Amino acid sequence: MSARRRFDEELGLLHHELVEMGSMIEKAIKTSFKAIESDDEEAAKDIIESDKAINEMERKIEARCLKLILRQQPVATDLRLISTAMKMITDMERIGDHAADIASICLDDEKEKNPEPFRIVDDKILKMADIDLEMVASSISAFINDNLELAKTTIKTDSEVDELFYEVRDDIIKGLKSDKISPSLAMDTLMLIKYLERIGDHATNICEWVIFYLTGEHKNKKLL
Amino acid sequence: MSARRRFDEELGLLHHELVEMGSMIEKAIKTSFKAIESDDEEAAKDIIESDKAINEMERKIEARCLKLILRQQPVATDLRLISTAMKMITDMERIGDHAADIASICLDDEKEKNPEPFRIVDDKILKMADIDLEMVASSISAFINDNLELAKTTIKTDSEVDELFYEVRDDIIKGLKSDKISPSLAMDTLMLIKYLERIGDHATNICEWVIFYLTGEHKNKKLL
Repeated sequence: MSARRRFDEELGLLHHELVEMGSMIEKAIKTSFKAIESDDEEAAKDIIESDKAINEMERKIEARCLKLILRQQPVATDLRLISTAMKMITDMERIGDHAADIASICLDDEKEKNPEPFRIVDDKILKMADIDLEMVASSISAFINDNLELAKTTIKTDSEVDELFYEVRDDIIKGLKSDKISPSLAMDTLMLIKYLERIGDHATNICEWVIFYLTGEHKNKKLL
Repeated sequence: MSARRRFDEELGLLHHELVEMGSMIEKAIKTSFKAIESDDEEAAKDIIESDKAINEMERKIEARCLKLILRQQPVATDLRLISTAMKMITDMERIGDHAADIASICLDDEKEKNPEPFRIVDDKILKMADIDLEMVASSISAFINDNLELAKTTIKTDSEVDELFYEVRDDIIKGLKSDKISPSLAMDTLMLIKYLERIGDHATNICEWVIFYLTGEHKNKKLL
């Protein structure tokens, strides 16, 4: 097999692993949300445990990228692909962390002392999670399908998540003022929406790297 | 000039720029804290503006790293240095973002409606900021001086920041329960300590990359 063909095969594997890591983080977000909605502590522990698999995947992809760069002098477009992959996985791993952070809210000790049933999720928060999931899926789809337009439109969606963050934050403050929400539930809810807001930011970062991959420009600046 | 010598010169410049970026983020943390302590909205706006310079620096270093990889097939240790730099700057840039996030708390609209004077910072929070600053400085110093021990001890300090986070979080909940803190100030304070906690995490990440640079192992796993 020619060196070039072996290199292309390795790139194919990289591609495949990125898609797999994408599925892993989407699943992590979904199951975290289920755990939190049903206040399922066992499920939460499972999610935190499976975050390790996402971290392992990041390291596996990272090692593959480094070896690809080391083994053969890549041409410019290959280098762009490899550096995009190295940047994307950092954001993907953080999204996995935030899914675990969300799940860990179930395990909050304060919560157990809370007399009311643990009800943290309202329609606005569900909407945030839905947009996040859509953004994560689209950012990876944009990469797989070389879809510049999709990367650009996905970035625009992030402002909806940001707006919902501020709306729910105001709801929490109002809830505290009228004693409709306990202080510890308020803290948990604020952290929950912060994690959701950050997931949107990381999906945006992924899209920005996809744009770099496709155009050589990162945030409208020529990088290579 | 030989290609190798030109390459070494470029590596020297990379080194220099990383140190400069380190100084920029340390300054950002310090000035954010001053802005928040004195509730100085103008200073806060300046910090948010100067975060752009940190982002620019990240892109400049990133472009240099990519060019270094592209221009000459780097040997394993050079490659390790370059990939460490590419990873470090992601965390450094996030620390800069968090400094701007901290400053932006001054600009919170809710706060203006707050009857009490804006006093968010207590001794525990100051302690968190001090440890953060120390961690950031040490992580970069460990890189510059090839100091493996310093990278390892710095990582251990992160648990102090985490403990303080939970202590202050409990203080906020108690403050809310006894009406000693307004809901909006509680939200701002929780976000503040979350940013401080994250800065510690990012400094830890930097140290982990320094360990990779010096040993080839990342979080006790062989990467290259």
